[in-house]
Amino acid sequence: MSPRLNLGPKPRLGYVESKLERAAERRDDAAYLSALQGDPNGLNYVIGGELVVLKKNGGGFNAAFTANDVRNLGTTNETVFLGLLADAGCFGIGLGEAATQALQARPDLHVTDLRSIAVQGLVGPDDLAPIAEAKALLHWHARHRCCANCGAATQSVHGGWRRDCPHCRAQHFPRTDPVVIMLAIDGENCLLGRQSRFPAGMWSCLAGFVEPGESIEEAVRRETREESGVSCGRVRYFASQPWPFPSSLMIGCHAEAISREIVVDRSELEEARWFEREEVATMLLRRHVEGWTTPPPVAIAHHIIRAWLEVGAGVFA
Amino acid sequence: MSPRLNLGPKPRLGYVESKLERAAERRDDAAYLSALQGDPNGLNYVIGGELVVLKKNGGGFNAAFTANDVRNLGTTNETVFLGLLADAGCFGIGLGEAATQALQARPDLHVTDLRSIAVQGLVGPDDLAPIAEAKALLHWHARHRCCANCGAATQSVHGGWRRDCPHCRAQHFPRTDPVVIMLAIDGENCLLGRQSRFPAGMWSCLAGFVEPGESIEEAVRRETREESGVSCGRVRYFASQPWPFPSSLMIGCHAEAISREIVVDRSELEEARWFEREEVATMLLRRHVEGWTTPPPVAIAHHIIRAWLEVGAGVFA
Repeated sequence: MSPRLNLGPKPRLGYVESKLERAAERRDDAAYLSALQGDPNGLNYVIGGELVVLKKNGGGFNAAFTANDVRNLGTTNETVFLGLLADAGCFGIGLGEAATQALQARPDLHVTDLRSIAVQGLVGPDDLAPIAEAKALLHWHARHRCCANCGAATQSVHGGWRRDCPHCRAQHFPRTDPVVIMLAIDGENCLLGRQSRFPAGMWSCLAGFVEPGESIEEAVRRETREESGVSCGRVRYFASQPWPFPSSLMIGCHAEAISREIVVDRSELEEARWFEREEVATMLLRRHVEGWTTPPPVAIAHHIIRAWLEVGAGVFA
Repeated sequence: MSPRLNLGPKPRLGYVESKLERAAERRDDAAYLSALQGDPNGLNYVIGGELVVLKKNGGGFNAAFTANDVRNLGTTNETVFLGLLADAGCFGIGLGEAATQALQARPDLHVTDLRSIAVQGLVGPDDLAPIAEAKALLHWHARHRCCANCGAATQSVHGGWRRDCPHCRAQHFPRTDPVVIMLAIDGENCLLGRQSRFPAGMWSCLAGFVEPGESIEEAVRRETREESGVSCGRVRYFASQPWPFPSSLMIGCHAEAISREIVVDRSELEEARWFEREEVATMLLRRHVEGWTTPPPVAIAHHIIRAWLEVGAGVFA
C-alpha cells in the first residue's frame, strides 16, 4: 500500500454544483418564459462564441446582467432558458461576432474567454455552472441552425432546449459529448501527457471522446492505448464535470496500467511520460523545481491527480 | 447493514467487452479500408434502421456476412469501418427502408430488431458489441446527411467516422448521448418506475439524458426528482453500457434517496413506487407471484438492481 499524502483542503471543482432549478417542465410554456424574461430580477449570462461578457463592478466583475442591461447590449441572436434561482429566471443570451466585438470597446464591460474567467476567479464559483450551461447550449444553437436530416432552417423552441424542422418535422436536441479523462497508474508512477496547446510546463491526464458502441471503461483503455501505447486493466470511475469547450461531459477515471512502454501518438500529444508520485505532488502544489505544473482546480484533471497523490492505490479500493 | 443476498452467477451485460481493435489510426487510409472490405475473411454487420439482418445457419443465425454475401443483398447505402478482429476487417453496412423490406422476404435471412436479438440470444454475445457500434454509427449517418451549420449535403469520410461539408467546411463527428440510469435507494427499499412502452409487469430504474452544463451526479438527482419527486443525496457510479437505441451511453448509478413521497411525472412514467428488497429479488429471479419482472441481463438496469440486491447499502461503500 502506498503512503498517504496530506495536500491540505480540497479546492472546488469548476462548473458543477449548480444552484439553479432547471424547471424543465416550464420550458414549453412560452408565456411564462416571456414574463420571466421581462422580470427586472432576472439573471442573464451573455456569451459570444468563446467569449463571455462581464459587467465591471468596482474592482470586480458581475457575470449576470439584468433584462435592462441586456437591452443596452445591442442585437442579441439567441435566448435560452437556464432555470430558476429562487424566483428569478436565468437565461443565456447569445451574441453574434460583430455584436461581441462592439462590446469589447465598452469601458463598463470586460469581454474575455471562459477559461481565463474560471482560472483567474473573475466571477464567483456559483456563476460558473450557469455560464457553462449557457455556453454549451448557445454553441449548439450557433452550429445547428439547419436540419441535419434535410438541410432546412430550424427553429428554436422550448426555451432553447429543442430545434424543430418545419420541413421534415425532425426534432433536434442539444448535444453533449461524453469524454473520458483518466490517470493511468503503475504503482508509485502515473502517466501524464502534454498537448502542444497546453501552457508551457503543464502536464495533464490523457483524454478522448467516448465513441459509439463502447462503454466508459472500454473508452478509457482504448484512448490510453491509442495516445500512449500503454495498456490498462482495472478502470475506476472517480467523478464527472461538464466542460463547455464546447459541450463535453468529462468523465474522470483512474486506470491500472498493465504495461510500461510508451509510444506517443504525435498527432494527439507532444509528449507523454511516467512521473513519480513525489514529483507530481510538487507540480500540483506549484513547487516543482522546473516550474512544471498540473491543471488548476477548476479542471477535473486536478482532482483526479490529487486523489491519487492523497491515497495512492486507495483510488482503486 | 442490510443482509447480503446470493443470486447465483452474474450474467453477462450486453453490448460491452468488444473484441474489436478499432484501429482509429487507419480510418483515413481509404486504400487500406477498400482492400480490407474486399477481403473474403471480412465480417459485415448489416443494419436497416432499427432492424438487423441475420443469416440463417441450421437452427441458428450468423450475424456477420462475407463481402460476397453483401453483394447479394442488393443496394446498400452506407459503409462504416468498425475495426479489426485479428486480421479481419469489420464493417457496418447500412440499408435503406426498401432494401430492408425486400430482404424480409428471403428465406435464407432473418430480419428482426436488435432488442429481440439481444434478449433472445439469437447471436453470440461477442456479436452484440460490433452490432451496437454499427447501429449507432449508421443511425447517425442516416439522420445527418446534411450540414447542421449551413444545410448543404455532407460526405462521409474517414471510414464513416466523420462527415464533411463541402460548402462551409464544417466537420461533423458521430453523436453519443450520455444518459444516467439510476436506482434510488432508501434503506431496504428501492424506487422503480414503469414507462407505458415497457412489457406488461416490467419495472426498471429511472433514466434520462445528461443535459449541457451538468455533471453525472447532478443529472441523477435532477432526473429522479423530475420523474418521481424523490430527492437524492449521495450518488455512486456503478458501471456503463453503450445503448444503440439509437446512440446512447448508459451511465449506471446508485443514489441515496433523502425523501420518500412520490409525485409521478405522467409525461415520462406510467407509474413509480417503492419496492421492498425481497420483492425485487423475486422479480429479478422471475419468481414474482404476479409475474412482475425487472429488465433482462442484457440491460444495465438488471445489473444495477442486482448489485443492490446482493450487497444492499454496500453499493455505497
